[in-house]
Amino acid sequence: MQVFAETFQFQTEGEIDIIDLTHELDKLVSKSGVKKGMLTANVIGSTGALTAIEFESGVLDDFRKLLEKLVPKGAGYKHDRIDSNAHSHLRASLLGPSLSLAIHDGRLQLGTWQQPVFVCLDVRPRSRRIAVTIIGE
Amino acid sequence: MQVFAETFQFQTEGEIDIIDLTHELDKLVSKSGVKKGMLTANVIGSTGALTAIEFESGVLDDFRKLLEKLVPKGAGYKHDRIDSNAHSHLRASLLGPSLSLAIHDGRLQLGTWQQPVFVCLDVRPRSRRIAVTIIGE
Amino acid sequence: MQVFAETFQFQTEGEIDIIDLTHELDKLVSKSGVKKGMLTANVIGSTGALTAIEFESGVLDDFRKLLEKLVPKGAGYKHDRIDSNAHSHLRASLLGPSLSLAIHDGRLQLGTWQQPVFVCLDVRPRSRRIAVTIIGE
Repeated sequence: MQVFAETFQFQTEGEIDIIDLTHELDKLVSKSGVKKGMLTANVIGSTGALTAIEFESGVLDDFRKLLEKLVPKGAGYKHDRIDSNAHSHLRASLLGPSLSLAIHDGRLQLGTWQQPVFVCLDVRPRSRRIAVTIIGE
Repeated sequence: MQVFAETFQFQTEGEIDIIDLTHELDKLVSKSGVKKGMLTANVIGSTGALTAIEFESGVLDDFRKLLEKLVPKGAGYKHDRIDSNAHSHLRASLLGPSLSLAIHDGRLQLGTWQQPVFVCLDVRPRSRRIAVTIIGE
Repeated sequence: MQVFAETFQFQTEGEIDIIDLTHELDKLVSKSGVKKGMLTANVIGSTGALTAIEFESGVLDDFRKLLEKLVPKGAGYKHDRIDSNAHSHLRASLLGPSLSLAIHDGRLQLGTWQQPVFVCLDVRPRSRRIAVTIIGE
């Protein structure tokens, strides 16, 4: 049984950039050597979220529009008096900061058209970090 | 300390079937022999989600209606040009693919009226798979 | 490698009380002695949820209003015929019951303005419980 811990970092293009994490997470699973176990990942920072989606440009656009519809920008939020990113925080809290995935036979158990993604809800481009822990054998 | 990994499969009736996973997850916890640990489960496929709810027919219907209200079917989505299930993907991404639960004293720590559920957001009946890993002692 | 399991309890003030769990979770990580690993936490009960947010009074109020907008109270729900808390269940299921976080260098990997929170969606004040498991070394 072993524990593998790593944080990775990448640059986003701002609102609403959606980053496919498949390659990075697969690389970490491989590097960990874990064949049977679990991976947990969480965003460091409160204007980003993790979820899974089919990484197809149409549905990514649909998802961006859905977030704008459900949590419109600048809708008279109190937090906007001190910062202009209330909608970023609200969207992030709605989607949630963490993801936990099973590793069986050395692979994350995901579908062919199912990609783990980071959703950048921040109003401007910035460097973002994801903390990952993998436990198993 | 041990790691237990298993994928289980079941048939859904299509949109929006909600499946109570309590019995299946309890069975896996029991089979794993883990008394103190954690369970992680994730949907394999991008048109299903995991969450918890009181498994009562009224609130299940309310939940179905809520999903239709928040993410209406066929609302001019780009993804619908290549497939007719944009709303399925969007609802799944909003709810999220994974669940992680504590196991104490050999039992998942859930309330009496709190059931872990698979939410089938796919437009048609199909066979669905959930990957589970349990770690503990 | 070790497993640490503990449930903690606190009193809420009812709808929609948002409780900052940072101190309690940090205390458990410290008590567990785990330097590298993961923490999983889940709400026991179906009228509460876990997520992360910047714990600032303005954005907390914005989040309360968002939940009321997305899932209004008393909107003709079927479950309200047997209980008056359909909206509590629906909001809880939308946000999700669980959170999983990485522990690196003995600390939960969270941002400075990112707090793990319990969202009390119940209609009345009550005692709530969170089950936590920490695994690592």
